[in-house]
Amino acid sequence: MQVVITAVGPDNRGLADPIVHSVTGMDANIAEIQMYDHDRESVFSMLTRVEIDASRYQELRKEMAAISQRTKLSIRTWTPDITGRRPALAICVTYRPEPALALLRAIRDGQVKAEPRLMIGNRETCRGLAEQFEVPWFNVGDKAGNPDDERMIALCDEHEVDFVILARYMRVLPAASCWKYAGGRIINLHHGLLPSFPGMQPYHDAFSSRMLTYGATSHFIVPELDAGCQIIYQSTFMVPPGTSRDEIIRRGQQDNEPHCLVEGVRRVVDGEVQLHFNRVVARK
Amino acid sequence: MQVVITAVGPDNRGLADPIVHSVTGMDANIAEIQMYDHDRESVFSMLTRVEIDASRYQELRKEMAAISQRTKLSIRTWTPDITGRRPALAICVTYRPEPALALLRAIRDGQVKAEPRLMIGNRETCRGLAEQFEVPWFNVGDKAGNPDDERMIALCDEHEVDFVILARYMRVLPAASCWKYAGGRIINLHHGLLPSFPGMQPYHDAFSSRMLTYGATSHFIVPELDAGCQIIYQSTFMVPPGTSRDEIIRRGQQDNEPHCLVEGVRRVVDGEVQLHFNRVVARK
Amino acid sequence: MQVVITAVGPDNRGLADPIVHSVTGMDANIAEIQMYDHDRESVFSMLTRVEIDASRYQELRKEMAAISQRTKLSIRTWTPDITGRRPALAICVTYRPEPALALLRAIRDGQVKAEPRLMIGNRETCRGLAEQFEVPWFNVGDKAGNPDDERMIALCDEHEVDFVILARYMRVLPAASCWKYAGGRIINLHHGLLPSFPGMQPYHDAFSSRMLTYGATSHFIVPELDAGCQIIYQSTFMVPPGTSRDEIIRRGQQDNEPHCLVEGVRRVVDGEVQLHFNRVVARK
Amino acid sequence: MQVVITAVGPDNRGLADPIVHSVTGMDANIAEIQMYDHDRESVFSMLTRVEIDASRYQELRKEMAAISQRTKLSIRTWTPDITGRRPALAICVTYRPEPALALLRAIRDGQVKAEPRLMIGNRETCRGLAEQFEVPWFNVGDKAGNPDDERMIALCDEHEVDFVILARYMRVLPAASCWKYAGGRIINLHHGLLPSFPGMQPYHDAFSSRMLTYGATSHFIVPELDAGCQIIYQSTFMVPPGTSRDEIIRRGQQDNEPHCLVEGVRRVVDGEVQLHFNRVVARK
Repeated sequence: MQVVITAVGPDNRGLADPIVHSVTGMDANIAEIQMYDHDRESVFSMLTRVEIDASRYQELRKEMAAISQRTKLSIRTWTPDITGRRPALAICVTYRPEPALALLRAIRDGQVKAEPRLMIGNRETCRGLAEQFEVPWFNVGDKAGNPDDERMIALCDEHEVDFVILARYMRVLPAASCWKYAGGRIINLHHGLLPSFPGMQPYHDAFSSRMLTYGATSHFIVPELDAGCQIIYQSTFMVPPGTSRDEIIRRGQQDNEPHCLVEGVRRVVDGEVQLHFNRVVARK
Repeated sequence: MQVVITAVGPDNRGLADPIVHSVTGMDANIAEIQMYDHDRESVFSMLTRVEIDASRYQELRKEMAAISQRTKLSIRTWTPDITGRRPALAICVTYRPEPALALLRAIRDGQVKAEPRLMIGNRETCRGLAEQFEVPWFNVGDKAGNPDDERMIALCDEHEVDFVILARYMRVLPAASCWKYAGGRIINLHHGLLPSFPGMQPYHDAFSSRMLTYGATSHFIVPELDAGCQIIYQSTFMVPPGTSRDEIIRRGQQDNEPHCLVEGVRRVVDGEVQLHFNRVVARK
Repeated sequence: MQVVITAVGPDNRGLADPIVHSVTGMDANIAEIQMYDHDRESVFSMLTRVEIDASRYQELRKEMAAISQRTKLSIRTWTPDITGRRPALAICVTYRPEPALALLRAIRDGQVKAEPRLMIGNRETCRGLAEQFEVPWFNVGDKAGNPDDERMIALCDEHEVDFVILARYMRVLPAASCWKYAGGRIINLHHGLLPSFPGMQPYHDAFSSRMLTYGATSHFIVPELDAGCQIIYQSTFMVPPGTSRDEIIRRGQQDNEPHCLVEGVRRVVDGEVQLHFNRVVARK
Repeated sequence: MQVVITAVGPDNRGLADPIVHSVTGMDANIAEIQMYDHDRESVFSMLTRVEIDASRYQELRKEMAAISQRTKLSIRTWTPDITGRRPALAICVTYRPEPALALLRAIRDGQVKAEPRLMIGNRETCRGLAEQFEVPWFNVGDKAGNPDDERMIALCDEHEVDFVILARYMRVLPAASCWKYAGGRIINLHHGLLPSFPGMQPYHDAFSSRMLTYGATSHFIVPELDAGCQIIYQSTFMVPPGTSRDEIIRRGQQDNEPHCLVEGVRRVVDGEVQLHFNRVVARK
């Protein structure tokens, strides 16, 4: 059984040792191990993927919980080998409802075999969508839409979420959040083709280049790395010369982006793809 | 009637004056005028698009021919308002036959309403293709494939070509050639998405970025400008993670590139698009 | 004598003809001619550089004034061959006083042989600087700092300015303004190395790339072209690893940027460099 | 005492476990740990930086040697805390002698406190330089200059080299070589400003952009990461408009590049900088 362990702490000293010591003591095989630091925020993180006999998974979880309690480290233990239930999703939104709506419909219709366990917004705009599909709704934003990032992670923890889906959630996740759900658990929809159009206004940028091709990208988020290299799925559409930017954005938002997110999430929950050493690989 | 006049000479002095003087003397309206220089090759060029009464087109041609003879300028007069015949194409190739083959088939089947007046190669590889479709074949390359650029243009002049189609012709046209057929008469097939992947190995570059989207671009060539902003048509295809680079290239070359060129040429010969102040615009 | 004529109008029809006709009629030699359009703003422009006998310069100016009055074109006639006086500058500022201060001091000390004819701000911040050096001050900004672009150009016209110096003026000049003073008359100080760091936050961008080299660029502004290819002067400074971003910005703003602007303006007013077919060339 | 351990093997299974187990068993504190894979070459690598009491360093080395012998892993143990001797350099060259010559002179004159233990070339060109300074010379290239990469590393191992200096060595080190001397032991001189001009022809690229600033970069090599983010030192020079490309290259090669390498190596051997989580940081 594959298990992903993430740890986040304020220092690089004492971060790896207890976990590594415990894991090797349980006959787990370390398949991948990374330490990161985010120098500007003084936050350090470790990710390790281990192979362990499935019978010892619960013991490993307890051990990690004990280390977490003993040290001040924020530790999470998770397995991508989900059996007997559907993967649980946290669907995060801001203003645009289309991608989340398409995902909820695809789940309802059996196209995406997942469970929308909760919806998180930093604005009230999509509350009605959550109500319509009877998904618990949480607004983590203040009046200006600034999200309470720690509460967002706490909600995902409490609801035992497998994957965090950023369905046009327009705030940047802080590095600490990305690390806590590292290892291929955060899926973002970017409304442009990566890596060519990475910014906040990919439609505008591609339009300025006089491109006739527009696209969207579903990708895993990996902190500290250039966006766009962890691509799960991309979809594009072409326009004839002279098409207005507004018309292009309309077609992208209403049709292309929702499709892109749905297929991206499907690939992950169906276990077709996986994050492996910061690359997306086909899972055998 | 719209008329495009190009002039190429060794100096910027005396390049514009005689043409401009003659054109304004014939009641033509100057709609666009540009002078370029290519400092490293000491070549200067002028392009002007004028509106003139159709009845005076032949007179204008004669006048320009006379100026050309009097000065040492290389002058070409051409109108995109082609009536009573199909636009004549020069199809230029190197090794890969697929895009040219697709274009010749599309012409044969009436999908592209043009006449393949000649084929030009810098290698012998595609001679059989020309013979199969009974198009005159000219090899302008020496033993190493280095093309005789002046002969290439002379062939296009002699055959009174309207559009030069670079169907995976793998040599760079010198600036002087581009200027002689400036004004939207040279159409290139690039085997990557422009402007993101401009180089000689766009499949390799996109693959290195771990993209899942690959594409091709049909565009007008405009010397002295960044490639890719004069896009006529783009087409893309998506691959799942784990697809090998060879498989991607195979799909691109056999399927996507030929389609991209055919649709690009069709848009031009059907008069749907036009080059206007270095931009591709829909023609009303 | 070299003369630069610019014309700006709402259409490409009728823009070139009268000027070209008049100029060729006066035995002027057209050395360069360009037409531009700015499709999103429906503004067309023409630039021509002509050689004419100095004795006919005033006649040419009158002729152009007459055309301007007859048509609705905004026409400007200017010669870079300034004799018997010092080039007149409009120094434009927003918040940062250092570059303008350095330029005013260099003029006072005879290092830059120019006359600071007026200062233009879109904020009040640098008024004191203008008063200190007894240069007429004009604030063209509203309460939010939004500049009245037409008034800015009108002020330059009234004061018969030769060169417009953007000394950390933080607003984008609209295309129409750039064209009215086209031909190498607008000099901008960019606080990053061009073309590598073109945006609004070049210090931040270079810092994110973990560079140890920071720089500034003096360049001519040419509308419709990528910024940074018309470089007059660049200066750089190096920092050791671990230097804070604030410290880097402080050194850049207080020392490197002022020096870069002064040397850039000096090269232009001393006639060492010139804009020629959108390139900066050494003037013989 | 800080110790860097690198391990390279053909698989990610069994790579981390024995080393991690042994290190934690010796009361070493893991300060940094990374695993990399190079999917196209099926090569996996691990880097760990540990803190251990200096008295146990030799024991740790023996333990690692034992693991290396028992498994098939290629393991190296090294400490940057060099005392009682000067850091030993392997100076690697191809054609251009200037940077190596400048480095050898700086060592001779006491400016760089290091020992040039051997010189390695893939061409014979710089043999005379090695003889002049009485440094052992090894040519690892075949007749076409293709280097024997394994022999290059073996030579560095045998000569107990601390740092590998790529002084305009023009071949790409394979990932396996980079990993074997990972942790800030390979210093490269790039003849352009990173990250803006990364390719094989940075002078040409910057010249094409019409820059007036040219530079060179000394940086640590980190496999799998974008070049240029591990910058130790950069130096630049400015040229006036109109300077020929050949003149620029001449100034860069004869003056700027040698200076850049010497100062880069000095910073490393003086312990002023260090690679820490893939970033260059000032060492306290």
